[in-house]
Amino acid sequence: MEIPFIKMHGLGNSYVYLDLFKSQVAEELLSDLAQKVSNVNTGIGSDGLILIHPSEEADVGMRIFNKDGSEGKNCGNGLRCTAKYAYEAGLVKNRIFQIETKSGNVDVEVMVHNEKVYEITINMGRPRLSRSSIPMVGEELETVVNEPFKVGNQVLYVTAVSMGNPHAVFFVDTIAEAPLNELGEIIERDPRFPEGVNVEFVEVVNDRELNFRVWERGSGITMACGTGACAAVVAATLNQLIPKNQTIRVHLDGGDLMVKWDQAGFVWMTGNAEVVAAGTFHYV
Amino acid sequence: MEIPFIKMHGLGNSYVYLDLFKSQVAEELLSDLAQKVSNVNTGIGSDGLILIHPSEEADVGMRIFNKDGSEGKNCGNGLRCTAKYAYEAGLVKNRIFQIETKSGNVDVEVMVHNEKVYEITINMGRPRLSRSSIPMVGEELETVVNEPFKVGNQVLYVTAVSMGNPHAVFFVDTIAEAPLNELGEIIERDPRFPEGVNVEFVEVVNDRELNFRVWERGSGITMACGTGACAAVVAATLNQLIPKNQTIRVHLDGGDLMVKWDQAGFVWMTGNAEVVAAGTFHYV
Repeated sequence: MEIPFIKMHGLGNSYVYLDLFKSQVAEELLSDLAQKVSNVNTGIGSDGLILIHPSEEADVGMRIFNKDGSEGKNCGNGLRCTAKYAYEAGLVKNRIFQIETKSGNVDVEVMVHNEKVYEITINMGRPRLSRSSIPMVGEELETVVNEPFKVGNQVLYVTAVSMGNPHAVFFVDTIAEAPLNELGEIIERDPRFPEGVNVEFVEVVNDRELNFRVWERGSGITMACGTGACAAVVAATLNQLIPKNQTIRVHLDGGDLMVKWDQAGFVWMTGNAEVVAAGTFHYV
Repeated sequence: MEIPFIKMHGLGNSYVYLDLFKSQVAEELLSDLAQKVSNVNTGIGSDGLILIHPSEEADVGMRIFNKDGSEGKNCGNGLRCTAKYAYEAGLVKNRIFQIETKSGNVDVEVMVHNEKVYEITINMGRPRLSRSSIPMVGEELETVVNEPFKVGNQVLYVTAVSMGNPHAVFFVDTIAEAPLNELGEIIERDPRFPEGVNVEFVEVVNDRELNFRVWERGSGITMACGTGACAAVVAATLNQLIPKNQTIRVHLDGGDLMVKWDQAGFVWMTGNAEVVAAGTFHYV
């Protein structure tokens, strides 16, 4: 079976996309198809499969299937790519619209020049900061900000943020010394985070820029993590290292994201999305 | 720039192919293009780029660019894919033809059913067996067959074969106990092989079948190695573990290859090639 696809990436986080406005794939094939397209040796190669589909709840819908065939809930990089495609393919008519996901409807806005989308802003929701919402064990507090956190013989200082998933943010003097290899996995698996945690090391460059590196829960060091960049800005604000309600440029290994934690408490993430290739996948 | 491509694989060894009969790419872009298409995060994802081009020396030509942008010489899996494409796209008219490569012209034959190529045979050339041709240090001998080879406290028995690249073949009772992780890298870097060596562990299943696993020089454990499968059949013949001049089925992790070392001294490798996808790559 020949299946039309588009491959897109956001900061190096790549998916194969199917436009279900144009063609259909039977539900029972999706898990298998996701595993096959994702395999770089015998398929196309990606972090998974994303379906862009008609929606009754929002202007357009998206579903994510991971590399292992399981269905995921949400993905900031995938949302940006979906938004770009939806606008450029004419699936939506306005620059501001909503995308249905498994974790609810998401507000997006695309910036357009010569009918091409060059930047996409996503409402990433409100952070949750209480210890139980991270979750992190210990006495319930409103926030976990710059709290001593012993790892082996060292005492680090942790700020914990949930963006729907748990983040432990540590500030460092220079990003070059971020101990990702040494401490990433140890902190991810620390029993104080019963569901594991994404580990971010952040350098405050100035009051408008952060340098950022991430150890992602379940994946290790990756080039970019959208929710992690949002958590970093929230954590830097809570520590009064940057001003409130200001757009901050976050430098990730895969590229830059602009993040703003607004007065209503929403975190807005702005970044790019790139079309890599389009064609047909030979599915057997 | 939109560049038409095909992605194909042989036993999981995948390349992005450009048909230069149909479209052109400037020479100075090729190294950069190879790196970009090969990157699974920001490109398509592959082991490299292969150009299929018109040839004055043979019926069709191929050039290989590795993932790092350097130009390679030859690749058995890439030759099978090139042969399949050349026939199915009508670049050649006969089932038997020659492909020009950087290491000379190669004889190929395709098997066809309903105008689709289902199997490809490649003449992999004559093995070279003298110690200096491997190269392997020590007293020059015509062959290195079942020679004691001390690694740490163990004594293994090595048979050395050059198929244009060096191979050290070790026979094991069952393939499950092949010590790839333990010894692969140690043997690859053993000073007795001054240019390094591909390390193969081989189980003789019966007089028509071998089980095979490989540690590839510079790559580690891979799913398949065409020259390694040829070296395994040559080594098993030299050790009188299989009959001469017979087609042997070699079971690799990525699939099967049929290998015959014929009376004229040529090694013929037969296997499959698969088209994965076709489309256009957005090159920037």
